[in-house]
Amino acid sequence: MRPNRLRERFDAGQAAVAGWLSFDSQYAAETLGHAGFDAVVVDLQHGPFHVDAAIGLMQALSATPAMPMARSPSLDFATINKLLDGGAWGIICPMIDTAGQARELVSACRYPPMGMRSFGPARGVLYGGPDYFDKANDTIEAWAMIETAEGLRNLESICAVDGLAGVFVGPGDLSLALGLPPTPRWREGPLAEALDRILQAARAAGKRAGIFCTAKEMAGDMRRAGFDLIVPGYDSLYLSSAAREWVAAAREG
Amino acid sequence: MRPNRLRERFDAGQAAVAGWLSFDSQYAAETLGHAGFDAVVVDLQHGPFHVDAAIGLMQALSATPAMPMARSPSLDFATINKLLDGGAWGIICPMIDTAGQARELVSACRYPPMGMRSFGPARGVLYGGPDYFDKANDTIEAWAMIETAEGLRNLESICAVDGLAGVFVGPGDLSLALGLPPTPRWREGPLAEALDRILQAARAAGKRAGIFCTAKEMAGDMRRAGFDLIVPGYDSLYLSSAAREWVAAAREG
Amino acid sequence: MRPNRLRERFDAGQAAVAGWLSFDSQYAAETLGHAGFDAVVVDLQHGPFHVDAAIGLMQALSATPAMPMARSPSLDFATINKLLDGGAWGIICPMIDTAGQARELVSACRYPPMGMRSFGPARGVLYGGPDYFDKANDTIEAWAMIETAEGLRNLESICAVDGLAGVFVGPGDLSLALGLPPTPRWREGPLAEALDRILQAARAAGKRAGIFCTAKEMAGDMRRAGFDLIVPGYDSLYLSSAAREWVAAAREG
Amino acid sequence: MRPNRLRERFDAGQAAVAGWLSFDSQYAAETLGHAGFDAVVVDLQHGPFHVDAAIGLMQALSATPAMPMARSPSLDFATINKLLDGGAWGIICPMIDTAGQARELVSACRYPPMGMRSFGPARGVLYGGPDYFDKANDTIEAWAMIETAEGLRNLESICAVDGLAGVFVGPGDLSLALGLPPTPRWREGPLAEALDRILQAARAAGKRAGIFCTAKEMAGDMRRAGFDLIVPGYDSLYLSSAAREWVAAAREG
Amino acid sequence: MRPNRLRERFDAGQAAVAGWLSFDSQYAAETLGHAGFDAVVVDLQHGPFHVDAAIGLMQALSATPAMPMARSPSLDFATINKLLDGGAWGIICPMIDTAGQARELVSACRYPPMGMRSFGPARGVLYGGPDYFDKANDTIEAWAMIETAEGLRNLESICAVDGLAGVFVGPGDLSLALGLPPTPRWREGPLAEALDRILQAARAAGKRAGIFCTAKEMAGDMRRAGFDLIVPGYDSLYLSSAAREWVAAAREG
Amino acid sequence: MRPNRLRERFDAGQAAVAGWLSFDSQYAAETLGHAGFDAVVVDLQHGPFHVDAAIGLMQALSATPAMPMARSPSLDFATINKLLDGGAWGIICPMIDTAGQARELVSACRYPPMGMRSFGPARGVLYGGPDYFDKANDTIEAWAMIETAEGLRNLESICAVDGLAGVFVGPGDLSLALGLPPTPRWREGPLAEALDRILQAARAAGKRAGIFCTAKEMAGDMRRAGFDLIVPGYDSLYLSSAAREWVAAAREG
Ligand SMILES: [Mg+2]
Ligand SMILES: [Mg+2]
Ligand SMILES: [Mg+2]
Ligand SMILES: [Mg+2]
Ligand SMILES: [Mg+2]
Ligand SMILES: [Mg+2]
Repeated sequence: MRPNRLRERFDAGQAAVAGWLSFDSQYAAETLGHAGFDAVVVDLQHGPFHVDAAIGLMQALSATPAMPMARSPSLDFATINKLLDGGAWGIICPMIDTAGQARELVSACRYPPMGMRSFGPARGVLYGGPDYFDKANDTIEAWAMIETAEGLRNLESICAVDGLAGVFVGPGDLSLALGLPPTPRWREGPLAEALDRILQAARAAGKRAGIFCTAKEMAGDMRRAGFDLIVPGYDSLYLSSAAREWVAAAREG
Repeated sequence: MRPNRLRERFDAGQAAVAGWLSFDSQYAAETLGHAGFDAVVVDLQHGPFHVDAAIGLMQALSATPAMPMARSPSLDFATINKLLDGGAWGIICPMIDTAGQARELVSACRYPPMGMRSFGPARGVLYGGPDYFDKANDTIEAWAMIETAEGLRNLESICAVDGLAGVFVGPGDLSLALGLPPTPRWREGPLAEALDRILQAARAAGKRAGIFCTAKEMAGDMRRAGFDLIVPGYDSLYLSSAAREWVAAAREG
Repeated sequence: MRPNRLRERFDAGQAAVAGWLSFDSQYAAETLGHAGFDAVVVDLQHGPFHVDAAIGLMQALSATPAMPMARSPSLDFATINKLLDGGAWGIICPMIDTAGQARELVSACRYPPMGMRSFGPARGVLYGGPDYFDKANDTIEAWAMIETAEGLRNLESICAVDGLAGVFVGPGDLSLALGLPPTPRWREGPLAEALDRILQAARAAGKRAGIFCTAKEMAGDMRRAGFDLIVPGYDSLYLSSAAREWVAAAREG
Repeated sequence: MRPNRLRERFDAGQAAVAGWLSFDSQYAAETLGHAGFDAVVVDLQHGPFHVDAAIGLMQALSATPAMPMARSPSLDFATINKLLDGGAWGIICPMIDTAGQARELVSACRYPPMGMRSFGPARGVLYGGPDYFDKANDTIEAWAMIETAEGLRNLESICAVDGLAGVFVGPGDLSLALGLPPTPRWREGPLAEALDRILQAARAAGKRAGIFCTAKEMAGDMRRAGFDLIVPGYDSLYLSSAAREWVAAAREG
Repeated sequence: MRPNRLRERFDAGQAAVAGWLSFDSQYAAETLGHAGFDAVVVDLQHGPFHVDAAIGLMQALSATPAMPMARSPSLDFATINKLLDGGAWGIICPMIDTAGQARELVSACRYPPMGMRSFGPARGVLYGGPDYFDKANDTIEAWAMIETAEGLRNLESICAVDGLAGVFVGPGDLSLALGLPPTPRWREGPLAEALDRILQAARAAGKRAGIFCTAKEMAGDMRRAGFDLIVPGYDSLYLSSAAREWVAAAREG
Repeated sequence: MRPNRLRERFDAGQAAVAGWLSFDSQYAAETLGHAGFDAVVVDLQHGPFHVDAAIGLMQALSATPAMPMARSPSLDFATINKLLDGGAWGIICPMIDTAGQARELVSACRYPPMGMRSFGPARGVLYGGPDYFDKANDTIEAWAMIETAEGLRNLESICAVDGLAGVFVGPGDLSLALGLPPTPRWREGPLAEALDRILQAARAAGKRAGIFCTAKEMAGDMRRAGFDLIVPGYDSLYLSSAAREWVAAAREG
């Protein structure tokens, strides 16, 4: 089975860097997959598509150096199972509020007896190889998003869930949960305190911490702060910001 | 009928700036359509899709400030007709080698008696309004790409074709045609001379000139040189270059 | 942010009229969007598609005068969130049985602190404009369908739910719930009584009332009865009934 | 092999009536297929789709009483071959100008030695049955559209082409070719004369005549005039006209 | 309404044989539909697609002798409803653990008052005919998968659920639940005992029993053992095993 | 640039074996790509799809050991260019009748000055790597199908075309061209003689010879006869024949 590329980074003492895909274009997926990321996360929560397109996007990513991951739209057992069948080497699940939910997430990502994932012939085996069943439980990672008030309250018990790879911060929703505007202010104030607390809790529990970054400076700051998994921006931000720069170059350059 | 936004720019003495779309994602199309372009060109020649996807992309563009245009895959009458039916307000046709081909292009873009475009109930009318048939011949523009050795030889006769809106330079293919590497060197040498000649020929014939630019500096240079329609870069370049910058910010920032 | 067109009608003392789309064709969507409706509802419950197609249909509607709305397939938080991200300016949720469910529906349609909707970069912002986040909670409407025996029993408590825009009657399912055949008899009998009760309850609670109509006469009757939101028929009924008329004209006309 | 349903009508001394599909929705296709037509023509010329969608639409039609046919986007050998492979029991080809083109059309629809159609394993055999190869040349029909000035000039020689099933009038384009507005005036004037001439020429050559009708009255008139194949209206006209009636019923009924 | 073909087999004292589809290709669906099966099950659990593709696959199957069925991705009311609307004549639901879940499944498959299925105009009626509503409750079958430890514990109470057509064994997951490797050993040991127990329980309750078979020998064995519904293999197994045989023939034959 | 896997076989003195894909399912593509073939040919001539689907299928193949190739629907310059942009490492073009057509084919597959292929940013570069432009002309192969009477007549001059990789036999169409039934009889008679002549002509011209085989025995025979590229069967044949065997095992095993 293809190894988990995030862990290769972690084992080398480095942060892993993942891309974020919300365009339902396999060509865009490949473009991101060749841009230097360790993994690319297909976003089924805010991306305008569901599993049909998502699996195609993971198929496209499978031909690139980047490892396919998926953000599930929710803690839905069947959807998570299908994303794994479709070749996701990791699941990031939004809005985990409780340890019980985190346990459900882990269960959905593991075959019995460690979980309740259903076994079926699917492309994960094609992409992963004939030892997929034997190694999947150890290779595939489940990440719980901390981004609600309740999730923050239950942070330590969530971090303690056995089999969870890590916690992943959604700073926009977390800002809203803290009564702040959605554009994250990560350097000071309540969000900064929450990020610090999350990082500490993850470490204390022997788990990884990841975060979605909405500014380049944030990405560097978060890596230096110790986050293991950095998502620096996302496809539609790349496209619109670069397009605006080129338009300006054409009109005024 | 919605007016031709390029002409509004031209009439104001400005260059028009168009985006270039090769991702078959309607969300990417909308993202480009809101990025400040006057038009967005759906590329059926090098983009990994044909008319089915292209019309969907033009539908998505129709809800943005950018006017939908299309680069046809070739000088194929039926395909050009369908792209117009699908709501293209302008066609850029690759590899026009002769004045005869340019006349075919114009004919495919115009209803009789000015051309041979077929009339049928289609979404152009929905997007354009009930006066579409009456105004389409005057509103929709046909641009001939000059990018082959033969096209360059026949430049003046192509520019003289009645009803043609302008000539549009494909600098990569034109470089190859001139025996140069495909990455355009627009500031000096054979390509620079050809660009100058094309611009002169267009002006002499009362036609517009447009160009695809692969560098920001090229976009500004071409506008200053007098090109009327500037395409500064393209979606996959935006995505990959911005992604690389953000990856660097995450790893080293 | 684009205003809610239904409210413009309501504020003018008029009923709003919405189309109903179950064809997964963007061209059909645009055709309906230009047919005179104030809004068009993309039906994910009985339409043969899920969110991928639905968002494309809303993209197509975005270029028309009709405001995009969606009937969600069920009270599923993630699906409702994605439809909103995809540009729905209103959600109609089937089979609301209890006030608790109605509150969940409202919560799914509102950002914190008024609800639990997740914030993410998505096309709603493109379609709606940069003030989308600030105005979305006030602009986007949630409608609860009353169409089960339990929903009818809990009608008043459902109508009392804060933030709910209105109740919307599914007369076919409601007829079944009342022990009647599915083709609605709206003028007398148990269904007529239920419709009257629903209308009264909505008014008493300061909420709007809407209804799906399966006959032209029903549409007029319901408007005169005081329903605020009228859905007169649906696409497949239009297509099949008109087709039959034209077939008859060809064979016997 | 399933028989040609048009011929069953013709053999019974009746006109055949075909539907016209431009919505790329398989559900819309089935809806039309159950509306009483003898056949439904999938329109690849003005419909916003190409062969991928068209074959899906014919698959959907295959489960209905209506026989699948296709209007090809042009006289393109490979496209016509693929539509046949996809299960079209008849091809209507636009803009046939000469007898030579009509012969090419016939050739594309027939296996050697009667034509140059390529043989390959495809769904036509699934839909048609194991005797498909043996009977296809005799069952599948090719219709040439007469709708240009040149086609009208060459009418008699086109009608004389061996193997052609009939000529089919595109009255919108033909009106343009005659210098008239595109909305057909079929009862008098140049178009009426042309229709009469086409009908006579077809009969004289032992060929069938068909026509696309844009009004119910036209459909009845054309049947009475002797046209064999009547296409009464089309899907988007059905949808928009019925929608407008229902909107009026809701607003004013 | 088209009859249930499984029952025709059962009534004739025969086992029914169903195909299993995980390729999201309508052409593959038709190919299976013409291969001699009584039904073909579209697999939404492990197949790489959701309802959009699944309904297209059922449309394709509708033109074949095989009756369309679907395995739902989970016990999700809305999804099951939509698959029925899409023309499934039977639902196989994975991972039924309790009688309560089995009752929910039955309810999702039946209109009131026997269940809570929602009534709406959809393609089931097109495929089934105008008496669809009257006969659907009696024709469409719900099958509960027994494949978890909990489901096995509750086997008898699940079998006792009124309206359930039968139980269907997922031998891979059941093996995992029994602490065995996922490749089923059906002839002896714990799985063989479980299969026997399931068959007995189904019979005792007057229900049918079905099973998914991963080897040809297993298919024959299970039929002889008394299983009513046999699924012999699945599409991707057919394709890969046959391909390997042909590759060997080419390289070494 | 990834090397041409066929040549690796040829250089090792072996025949190459290619799969044949007509299912528009990326999962089916991957399944074939992992079944032991050196390459898989996406069939746009008889497969029910065009370039949009074909490029997705090649993306899926890109993650497998099999090299992506495509059979173009015809000798259409723009389509062949797009398939190459989409990552085809080889083109098989049907129905090449003359040396002039073969030269056009070669030209469409090569950048200037060796051909007229257009250069554009596309996924071929992603899949192939940054040296794609430099090596594409030498790596990508063009194969001309010999399957018509005229092609057979012009065999030697076709084989002499510079830059052509080889000739590829379509035995079904060639049989028809020879006045035989479409199911190939390769062991004796006119087809056997033609195959021998083609093989000799290819060798005499220093070109490769390939053939599509419709029986396992034919595949072995053709390899032994000296054909370089063997296509043993095709996906729909695999699926239907294996399905029938499994049905038999279930019913009678
Ligand atoms: Mg979030
Ligand atoms: Mg070019
Ligand atoms: Mg309802
Ligand atoms: Mg016409
Ligand atoms: Mg299972
Ligand atoms: Mg052939």
